[in-house]
Amino acid sequence: MNTQQMEQMGQFKITVWEEENFQGKRCEFMLECQNIMERGFNKIRSIKVENGPWVGYEYPEFQGQQFILEKGDYPRYEAWSGNSSYRTEHMLSFRPIKSANHSDSKAMGWCSKEVPSIKVNSGAWVAYQFPGYRGYQYILERDRHQGEYRNYNEYSTQAHTNQVQSIRRIQH
Amino acid sequence: MNTQQMEQMGQFKITVWEEENFQGKRCEFMLECQNIMERGFNKIRSIKVENGPWVGYEYPEFQGQQFILEKGDYPRYEAWSGNSSYRTEHMLSFRPIKSANHSDSKAMGWCSKEVPSIKVNSGAWVAYQFPGYRGYQYILERDRHQGEYRNYNEYSTQAHTNQVQSIRRIQH
Repeated sequence: MNTQQMEQMGQFKITVWEEENFQGKRCEFMLECQNIMERGFNKIRSIKVENGPWVGYEYPEFQGQQFILEKGDYPRYEAWSGNSSYRTEHMLSFRPIKSANHSDSKAMGWCSKEVPSIKVNSGAWVAYQFPGYRGYQYILERDRHQGEYRNYNEYSTQAHTNQVQSIRRIQH
Repeated sequence: MNTQQMEQMGQFKITVWEEENFQGKRCEFMLECQNIMERGFNKIRSIKVENGPWVGYEYPEFQGQQFILEKGDYPRYEAWSGNSSYRTEHMLSFRPIKSANHSDSKAMGWCSKEVPSIKVNSGAWVAYQFPGYRGYQYILERDRHQGEYRNYNEYSTQAHTNQVQSIRRIQH
């Protein structure tokens, strides 16, 4: 299946809301959006990506600061923004990233946003609250707890949620 | 070489400063630090990781929110903190992550923090200003600019720097 066909088949799908936590006016997209204000939105305050990846932009017409949007839930601005001294709260246009399709894609994503326990068989990993390696960080190691994190409290003494939406291996 | 030997050989090295941008009081560590205040620091405001990875903690004795610290420069708090609604500016203890050593480690890190141009041979990538997928984000695609980003201005119309300290492939 080529990228054009994928697009036609609804292989890209994003939903945006005007309020935080998926409240208020909503709009679904399977194609790029050049300017969300043309849909009567003042702002985007929460996002769900059902099929991605997408890239969001600070300004209309795909201009300004960029935000990678991968499969998962973004309940507020902090969930998709980068950490930088220049903090903007606009995201006014977005488009699918078509050239990201490749064969080993099945490794990404899982069904639930809640991860009640984790077993580390080797190495060290970072689990994150939000997609794209953002939000709370939990370091998970084979050498600690015998690699067994049986409850989300064991991810961190300060873990308030079992929400884990991205994970990656730590390398030297 | 086992992890104990790596530690003895100075395979883990982190330098912390009391002020932003690597200014003021500084201290180098090759072993864990249980409480930076015992070294007369009020706060850590910038970090360089020469050999990692390390994990930083909000509180002494490896308690509280966690921060993954990989090779690279962290000129201020935003460079290592996660994006979350609960923003703390403390990082008072840290330790090496010993179980992260594995054979394909050579793929990580490069000599310079400045990356003046990038050629994308396939797929789509996100380049980030800071280590560990933080800071400004630049989406780089084979399908745009014929994959050639000859100048950092081409990373983004808003790119103010050619600093790129981490990069990853985007997957569906």
